[in-house]
Amino acid sequence: MSSPRADLAVIGGGQLARMMQQAAIGLGVRLRLLAEGPDVSAAQVIGDHRVGDYTNLDDLRAVAADVPVVTFDHEHVPPEHLRTLEAEGHACRPGPQALLFAQDKGAMRVRLAELSVPTPRWAVVESVSDLEDFGFPAVVKTTRGGYDGKGVWFVQSAADAEEALATGRALIAEELVEFRRELAALIARRPTGDVVAWPVVESWQAYGVCKEVVAPAPDLDPALAREAEAIARTIAAALDVTGVLAVELFETTDGRLLVNELAMRPHNTGHWTIDGAATSQFENHLRAVLDLPLGPGEAREPWSVMVNILGGSIDDLEAQLPVVLDAVPGIRVHLYGKTVKAGRKVGHVTAVGSDLQDTQARARRAADLFEKGTTDD
Amino acid sequence: MSSPRADLAVIGGGQLARMMQQAAIGLGVRLRLLAEGPDVSAAQVIGDHRVGDYTNLDDLRAVAADVPVVTFDHEHVPPEHLRTLEAEGHACRPGPQALLFAQDKGAMRVRLAELSVPTPRWAVVESVSDLEDFGFPAVVKTTRGGYDGKGVWFVQSAADAEEALATGRALIAEELVEFRRELAALIARRPTGDVVAWPVVESWQAYGVCKEVVAPAPDLDPALAREAEAIARTIAAALDVTGVLAVELFETTDGRLLVNELAMRPHNTGHWTIDGAATSQFENHLRAVLDLPLGPGEAREPWSVMVNILGGSIDDLEAQLPVVLDAVPGIRVHLYGKTVKAGRKVGHVTAVGSDLQDTQARARRAADLFEKGTTDD
Repeated sequence: MSSPRADLAVIGGGQLARMMQQAAIGLGVRLRLLAEGPDVSAAQVIGDHRVGDYTNLDDLRAVAADVPVVTFDHEHVPPEHLRTLEAEGHACRPGPQALLFAQDKGAMRVRLAELSVPTPRWAVVESVSDLEDFGFPAVVKTTRGGYDGKGVWFVQSAADAEEALATGRALIAEELVEFRRELAALIARRPTGDVVAWPVVESWQAYGVCKEVVAPAPDLDPALAREAEAIARTIAAALDVTGVLAVELFETTDGRLLVNELAMRPHNTGHWTIDGAATSQFENHLRAVLDLPLGPGEAREPWSVMVNILGGSIDDLEAQLPVVLDAVPGIRVHLYGKTVKAGRKVGHVTAVGSDLQDTQARARRAADLFEKGTTDD
Repeated sequence: MSSPRADLAVIGGGQLARMMQQAAIGLGVRLRLLAEGPDVSAAQVIGDHRVGDYTNLDDLRAVAADVPVVTFDHEHVPPEHLRTLEAEGHACRPGPQALLFAQDKGAMRVRLAELSVPTPRWAVVESVSDLEDFGFPAVVKTTRGGYDGKGVWFVQSAADAEEALATGRALIAEELVEFRRELAALIARRPTGDVVAWPVVESWQAYGVCKEVVAPAPDLDPALAREAEAIARTIAAALDVTGVLAVELFETTDGRLLVNELAMRPHNTGHWTIDGAATSQFENHLRAVLDLPLGPGEAREPWSVMVNILGGSIDDLEAQLPVVLDAVPGIRVHLYGKTVKAGRKVGHVTAVGSDLQDTQARARRAADLFEKGTTDD
């Protein structure tokens, strides 16, 4: 395939890169994609793509050739390759020094402690005795490569941790936090240090996978909202994050915030911004990594509710479009062009409105219809 | 290039097809494009494209192969080719029986008269004496192929019409309407007959080229707004239009509406809907031609103002992005990836807000900065 001029190379062809393309079309920004396969989600809509392996330096070099800036659909590119790309003149945004903390939960927790950012109590565990010293119940996580509930074990006893310890991978244990709910603080940051924040949202996870996001988080104490945003700003500045940073937090039953996870890319908890905010996370991610002025993050409607479409009993999502669009007028639909597998994120829907219950009901109904062809209500 | 499955073939690679792709990404609709060249506006963002000639039946057949529905970025495909595609099993939306009236201003005016839709007084003119019978001043237009002020002459005398008559093309003369302003009524219509309308807008043309659109039209008599929408619905139903129909109207100084032009595709007067309406004209065009339920057309903000970026003294629009985004926070930018030529539509900006003057000022300022690098204010 011939390669026209490109402004930005994107590594990874999932739905995040796909949704970046919607924003890129408006800005006149030309993307070049490194895709895992010829028909993955983003390759369907970014004509200038190469198929390759993001762990292979030559594939990374080929897609980045003549492109000044490189960004990412995920956090799994080996840091040593990113350092090589930087040495060869490409700006990696975010850079390897920042991405490290999204890649390695151990390094992240050490760094957050240095920054006095509150996290659950945690420890490195290498053995049953380490785990017994830490105490039960606990959450055991691989420090690298976990996502969407993978690489996470809830353990009540040493026996429950057998599978985790048998992986041979670096592990940490965390206290099982008694939380009221999960929140997320989303910001975008330019290399200049300029930051724009979106309203703090509530997210609801089912079996470790994000299922629903409500923006803004209902009845959130304004002081906690300010604290969540301040935590995100502190982390972004200290780690020199460029692009979108998502900070997932627990709001504990006793009213504290604890940082759970970081993501340095557009994030599922920010999908509502496409339809519900003055500037979407995808547009501000592009603007941030290209060092362009950021757009405002404020909500356009009192409530936005995003519900993920997880793979269910229906294989052909497009065939459900008439049903969904007819049943839920005004619903905003985002399908990812992925093959449906049980539990896989294959799309999302967003409803906006002035009444939370109604907005939530519409979004849930649309997602149900995509997943099951019917609704429980 | 290999051709994956496509849901919809789009003929013509201009900015309208480009903006259809933003909507198609969300809906999971796969577009295949017939482009005039390898790097035209829409070819930059629709990977599955072929370069070809839309007046060549074989090129049309090649892009439509295995694609059930065909739609258009412009109205210039020969009707006989569309009838052939229909005979070969493709649904052309809009179909040739409807497109005829967007292609031929004479046929359109005859049909509108049959429908009792008000238009300026007009007549076919083939000679100076026809024109003298019609009277002066008059507007002389070619019945086919005119757009953006091309193929239009304002004539005060027979001598002024020499150039027009010398073209040897079919011409009509129209009375020079004394109008207060120009309006546009935009609707989308499914094959089932379902219609969704957007608010009637005011448009301002400079030298025959659309420069600014305000939605909704300020201070429009609600009765006239209803009449404009009713005219659009009447035309769409009578001509069996599928997809977006734009009806350009004069609001006369004595308070009547007269139909000026028709377009059967997303239209410049509807670009504001991307950022300002519950559903964009591009999304509803796709939904209409694919016979999917339409989304609501209501405005999301009290005012939306769209200003076209016409080719000016600055060649590199992207280099202006930092200036514009910094000077006008919240402006929505749409660049078309086109080479800048004087007066050419190369992008547009939209501002939304609750104060008309402020919204208009922001949109104009952003367009000025793209065109000239400076503003008059």
